[in-house]
Amino acid sequence: MSAPRMIDLITRKKRGEEMTAAELAWMASEFTRGTIPDYQMAAWLMAVCWRGMTERETLWLTEALVASGRTLEWRDDKPVVDKHSTGGVGDKTSIVLVPLLASAGHIFVKMSGRGLGHTGGTIDKLESIPGYRVALSVEELRRQVERIGCALIAQTPDLVPADAALYALRDVTGTVDCMPLIASSVMSKKLAAGAHAIVLDVKYGAAAFMPTLEEAEALAAAMVRIGEGARRRVRALVTPMDEPLGRAVGNALEVREAIDTVTGSGPDDLRALVIELGAHLMVLSGSARHLEDARAALGILLDSGVAADHLEKLIAAQGGDPRVVTDPSRLPAASEIRIVAGEASGWVERVDARVIADAALTLRAGRLRKGDAIDPAAGVRLLARRGDEVRPGQPLAEIHAASTEMARQAELIVRRAFRIGEERPAVPESPVVVVGE
Amino acid sequence: MSAPRMIDLITRKKRGEEMTAAELAWMASEFTRGTIPDYQMAAWLMAVCWRGMTERETLWLTEALVASGRTLEWRDDKPVVDKHSTGGVGDKTSIVLVPLLASAGHIFVKMSGRGLGHTGGTIDKLESIPGYRVALSVEELRRQVERIGCALIAQTPDLVPADAALYALRDVTGTVDCMPLIASSVMSKKLAAGAHAIVLDVKYGAAAFMPTLEEAEALAAAMVRIGEGARRRVRALVTPMDEPLGRAVGNALEVREAIDTVTGSGPDDLRALVIELGAHLMVLSGSARHLEDARAALGILLDSGVAADHLEKLIAAQGGDPRVVTDPSRLPAASEIRIVAGEASGWVERVDARVIADAALTLRAGRLRKGDAIDPAAGVRLLARRGDEVRPGQPLAEIHAASTEMARQAELIVRRAFRIGEERPAVPESPVVVVGE
Repeated sequence: MSAPRMIDLITRKKRGEEMTAAELAWMASEFTRGTIPDYQMAAWLMAVCWRGMTERETLWLTEALVASGRTLEWRDDKPVVDKHSTGGVGDKTSIVLVPLLASAGHIFVKMSGRGLGHTGGTIDKLESIPGYRVALSVEELRRQVERIGCALIAQTPDLVPADAALYALRDVTGTVDCMPLIASSVMSKKLAAGAHAIVLDVKYGAAAFMPTLEEAEALAAAMVRIGEGARRRVRALVTPMDEPLGRAVGNALEVREAIDTVTGSGPDDLRALVIELGAHLMVLSGSARHLEDARAALGILLDSGVAADHLEKLIAAQGGDPRVVTDPSRLPAASEIRIVAGEASGWVERVDARVIADAALTLRAGRLRKGDAIDPAAGVRLLARRGDEVRPGQPLAEIHAASTEMARQAELIVRRAFRIGEERPAVPESPVVVVGE
Repeated sequence: MSAPRMIDLITRKKRGEEMTAAELAWMASEFTRGTIPDYQMAAWLMAVCWRGMTERETLWLTEALVASGRTLEWRDDKPVVDKHSTGGVGDKTSIVLVPLLASAGHIFVKMSGRGLGHTGGTIDKLESIPGYRVALSVEELRRQVERIGCALIAQTPDLVPADAALYALRDVTGTVDCMPLIASSVMSKKLAAGAHAIVLDVKYGAAAFMPTLEEAEALAAAMVRIGEGARRRVRALVTPMDEPLGRAVGNALEVREAIDTVTGSGPDDLRALVIELGAHLMVLSGSARHLEDARAALGILLDSGVAADHLEKLIAAQGGDPRVVTDPSRLPAASEIRIVAGEASGWVERVDARVIADAALTLRAGRLRKGDAIDPAAGVRLLARRGDEVRPGQPLAEIHAASTEMARQAELIVRRAFRIGEERPAVPESPVVVVGE
C-alpha cells in the first residue's frame, strides 16, 4: 500500500470505519518516531472513544503497539505466566503471587506501575523495601530470571514505547476512559513481556476503575479476546473492589501484609485471591489439571515457607534487604501511630475503600499528581472489617503518619469510611466471574 | 469562577455536557494566547463533533470567538448588510451583489476567502483584476467605506483570530465537518464585521458542502439561530448547487461574467440569485417593504448601469484597474482556447459541477492544497447548459488553458461532465428554501 495519511485515518475513524492492520502498524510506528503530531493523534484517540474499535481492530492496534519496541522471550522448559490487575485499594497481590508461582516452577516476570489517585502501585510498595531496585535492564532481567525464575520490576522503556507515548497523550486529552484503548494498552505490555498464560484481575465496584460488574466484564472480554487473537492462553477473573483488599493500605504496611501472606498467614481475602489467581495460572499454563489441585498445592507452598524463601531470593536479587521477610521491622515505620476508636456499638456493615484511599492520600501514602513524593511508612491498617461486631472504644483502625497533625486529619476521614449498623450484615454477594477459556 | 482546566472541559464535552459561556470565553481567549496546547484543543474539537453543542452553547462559542479580536462598527445612517455563501462552483455572486447593494444605499463590507478543492474563492477571482488589493488595514477599510459604502476584501487577521487558529487546527484534525463548528465559524466573522442584516446562501447538492437539502437546512437553521441570539436580522436561502452557477468557472472568466451581470446582462441563473439575495437583504435591513419591490429596484440598478458604476468605484478604490468593467479584455487571457464539440445529439440533461471543477483544477484555475499557485486566466466556459438541445459538432464548452497539453487533459474531464439524453429534461425541482424570519 502507499503510505497512509493521518488526516484520512482520523476522518475514517470519525465516520466509524475500521482501520486496517497495516494502517495501525504505520500509525503506531510513525507516532513513536514523532512524525505524527500530537494534535492529530489526539483527534484520532477521541474519535476512537466515540466510535469504538472492532474486535480484530483492537487486536491489530495491540500488535502495532507491541511492534513499536522490543519483545521478550523466555526459555521454553518452564511455563511462563503473567498477571495484570486493573488496580484497587490495598492490592498487594503481585508481591505474594510472583514468588509463589516461581516457587511452583513457573517463570513470572511481572512489570508494574506506580500509584496514582486512590489506586496504589506495586512499584511504590516495593520501593519501601530498603535497597530494592525496580528498574532492571533487559540483560539484568534475563540473568535474574535464568537464576531465580522471577522478577518484579517497573515497566521497561524498551518495551511498547508507543503505548507509553500514547498513554501520556491520553492522560492530558480526556481519552483514558475508553475500552479498546485500555484493553490494547494493558495487553500490549503483557504480550511484549512474553508470557504464554495470563490471568487478568479485573476489578469492579466503588473503588475500581470499572464501577459496575457489566463494564468490568466487557473490559475483561475485550482483553481476553486480544490475548486469544495473539495465541496466548488468557483468562480474566472479575473481582469486587468495594472494600480494601486485606487490612493494610500504604506502602510498607502492604509489603508487611504481603510478607505475612507469603509466609502462610495474612488476611483471608488476600490469601484467597492470591490462591485463586495462581490456580488459574497453573491450569492455564498446563502445570495443573484442575483448579482444586492447584489451590491445594499453592496453599502448601505458602504454609511451608517455600514461597517465602522465593520472596527472599527475589528481594535479594533486586538489591533489596531480604531480611525484611523474617524481620519486617526493617521496613520503614511511621513516627506517629494513632488508634481510631469506635463510638457506636453494632456491626461493621462496610469499610469504604475509596474513603480509606482518601485517608492514605492525606497521609502522603499515595500521590494526587504524577511525580509527587510519597511517604513509604504512612498508611492505614484496618483493625475491624465488614462483618465484625464492634463496641464503643474498640479500635477500628491504626493510622501510621509522619506527624500528629496528619494523623488527626486522616482520622476524620477514616471514621467516615466505617458504616456501623445494628444488625450483622449478610455475607455480600460478590461474584467472582471467570471470563475466557 | 476559578479558572477552568482544559482537561475538565474535554472530559465534560466527551460526556455530552454543555459548556458555560464563561468556560467557552476562557477557552477561546487562552487558545488564542497559545496557552492551551493544540492536542487538547484537537481532542475537544473531536468531542464536539461527537456530542454536538446546544443552541445556546453554539451562540456562546460564536461570541467567544468574536471576543478574541477586534470588531467593526459602521455609521448608523445607512443599513449595514452582509452575505455569506457556503461555496460552490462558479459562484461569483459577491462581485455583483456588493456594488449592487452599495448602489442602493447600503453599507456592504464583504470579507471573503480563497478557493480550495472544487470550491472557488472570491479573493482569487478579484486578484485576477490587475492591481486589485484584497488586503486592507482596518483604517483603510474605514476610509473606503466612508467614501463609497462598500469593500470586497480578504478576511482581516485582526478580526476573530481565534477562528483562524481553530480553523487551521480543524483542517488537520478531521474536524471541519461539524455543524456547530461550521456555524460558529461563519457567524463569528459576520458578527465581528458589524452588519445588522445578514443573508446566508447555504448550498445543497452534489457540488455543495452539504449534499442534501435536509443537512443544508439544518446548517442554515443553526446559523440563523446564532444571528438571532446575537440580535442581528438573519435569513438563509437554501439553494441548489449541482450545476455550475452561470457559465464561467475560473477566476478571470468569472470576473468577466460578474461584469456582464452587473451591467444588466449575464446568465439568468446568476442574475436571479443576485437579485434574490439582494432583495432579502433589502427587506431584512428595512430598506424595502416587500421582496417584489426590492427585486424590481435591483433589476433597474443592474440594467441602468448604476450598479456597474459602483463596481468601477470599488475596483478603483482597492487599487485595481476600473477599466476592466467597460473593457473586460484587460483581464488576463489564456493563450490556448479549445472548443469541446459535442458528439451526440439530444438534450443536455446535466452538467456536473463537481466534474467541471475537477477540469478547472487540472487547468490550475483552483488549488488542491493551500498555498498552491493558480492561473488566473484558466478555466471553463459552458456553451451548452441543462435543457439545451445539442447536435453532433456543436460546441459544448470552451477550455481556457496555459498549454495545449493541459487543454487536452481538461477536455477529457469536461466531456464526462455532460450527460446528453434523448428527451428534453424536465425543469428540475430545485427549491429555494428560506430559513429565518
